[in-house]
Amino acid sequence: MPTFRERIAERTRLTGGCLCIGLDSEPDKLPREFLGPGDSQVEFNRAIIDATKDLAVCYKPNTAFYESRGVEGFAALEQTARYLHSLGIPAIADGKRGDIGNTARQYAKAFLETIPFSAVTVNPYMGEDTIAPFRDYPDAGIFVLCYTSNPSRVDLQTKTVRKKDGTAEAMYQWVARKIHDWDTAKNLGAVVGATAPKELRDIRGILGPEIPILCPGIGAQGGDLEETLRYGEASLDGNMLINVSRSVLFASRGKDFAEAARNEAAEIVDRMRTYFNL
Amino acid sequence: MPTFRERIAERTRLTGGCLCIGLDSEPDKLPREFLGPGDSQVEFNRAIIDATKDLAVCYKPNTAFYESRGVEGFAALEQTARYLHSLGIPAIADGKRGDIGNTARQYAKAFLETIPFSAVTVNPYMGEDTIAPFRDYPDAGIFVLCYTSNPSRVDLQTKTVRKKDGTAEAMYQWVARKIHDWDTAKNLGAVVGATAPKELRDIRGILGPEIPILCPGIGAQGGDLEETLRYGEASLDGNMLINVSRSVLFASRGKDFAEAARNEAAEIVDRMRTYFNL
Repeated sequence: MPTFRERIAERTRLTGGCLCIGLDSEPDKLPREFLGPGDSQVEFNRAIIDATKDLAVCYKPNTAFYESRGVEGFAALEQTARYLHSLGIPAIADGKRGDIGNTARQYAKAFLETIPFSAVTVNPYMGEDTIAPFRDYPDAGIFVLCYTSNPSRVDLQTKTVRKKDGTAEAMYQWVARKIHDWDTAKNLGAVVGATAPKELRDIRGILGPEIPILCPGIGAQGGDLEETLRYGEASLDGNMLINVSRSVLFASRGKDFAEAARNEAAEIVDRMRTYFNL
Repeated sequence: MPTFRERIAERTRLTGGCLCIGLDSEPDKLPREFLGPGDSQVEFNRAIIDATKDLAVCYKPNTAFYESRGVEGFAALEQTARYLHSLGIPAIADGKRGDIGNTARQYAKAFLETIPFSAVTVNPYMGEDTIAPFRDYPDAGIFVLCYTSNPSRVDLQTKTVRKKDGTAEAMYQWVARKIHDWDTAKNLGAVVGATAPKELRDIRGILGPEIPILCPGIGAQGGDLEETLRYGEASLDGNMLINVSRSVLFASRGKDFAEAARNEAAEIVDRMRTYFNL
């Protein structure tokens, strides 16, 4: 079986873009009147996926939008993952889990075995113990939070930390170096917000050209697409995934919601093709 | 309705201890042959709760051990929370979630509304945005990871960070100060591993006497109970919760598992009563 990295490389070349569609399908925002009789989140996700699957490299449901519904929502998350799996399209469980040892192993089992996701996001606050159990999944993608897209990232991620040699660096730089060092199974990636092009360039320099970077923050959060591609040194080898959620999912709240999502996604992929000289 | 802090204070005085039982009910370790016909995790948790409910201040299922089973496990987590809610016993959803804005709000909804937990654990890596939506739940308990009990906590949490005045401190000290500053809704707490008494004393000094500290790491991980109580300045006002998981849950794998769990919990609470001079 190809690895997650190989799969996103293949689909990046296939689509000519590096678009990840964030299935942050907030229950209160779904156009229920235009959906089928099944579970609204599942129906909505299927419609979005069917309308965009030749444009997106992968999809990324944020688990919060499903867990907020309890068991029904968790079932909708699982069904969405199974649908993507049946289509052979990579799917990232954006749960930002972070725990240790045996507990981290349970998370790996949850999102890479029980529920057939291809990749997960994890939080590095507890250190390498968080990552270690995921080394047993070399075919998966493990995206470690590095420099996030939200305003209060500065609380912790830009703190100046002292290196062993007495010089200083920002916490996010230190985390980027660790992601590079911890990547012995060649399955790690980094989450870096598209709202910080300078830091993105910096992190790309630390990670090297191959480790994939998942970039949220384009669209509603204000990140610039071309700048992000350039500063992240996006290549057709699948080293970058640009996530877009709300601006695609909710491009229209009318009965044309899937078509509007497709148009929005197509416009983004067109700009990516231009960047890639395709 | 009393707040989470008031409820743990009341039950600390009632039980004479500050025991939190971690319901890390790993599916593969359950004594199925001695459980009823229902879902094994739910049956096991009910048996443990029934055998220890006059000894424990609260219970804390780690969500990973449920999510690893997929939808059935998530249902078992929800049923466990509902059972504790029906008994009027506080329950902490140990999910270590950390996300921002609208997404963090969905997590709050998931674990404090849809599923009736009384408290959650959260990860501070993304900064104050992670905490902010939880201010709308002043009656809940929000335990922020500060200094964890695992070996690789040193990767990030003990990094030396520069303060504005030019002096330096460890990252966990900085997080402790932030927990203190962010606690405007009087619902925050800190997670501090029992395997680090010196740092625990330090953090208690920063937090002041009232902010509750949740301490994992006693038992299997090697933390010392009396030292933890002393360095954490545990009082009968509910400022401390000592979590014990495996050594209680799996005290016996035989048909006496619930009785053995009770005996183990009773021994720990006896030592707590001694510390409290009861």
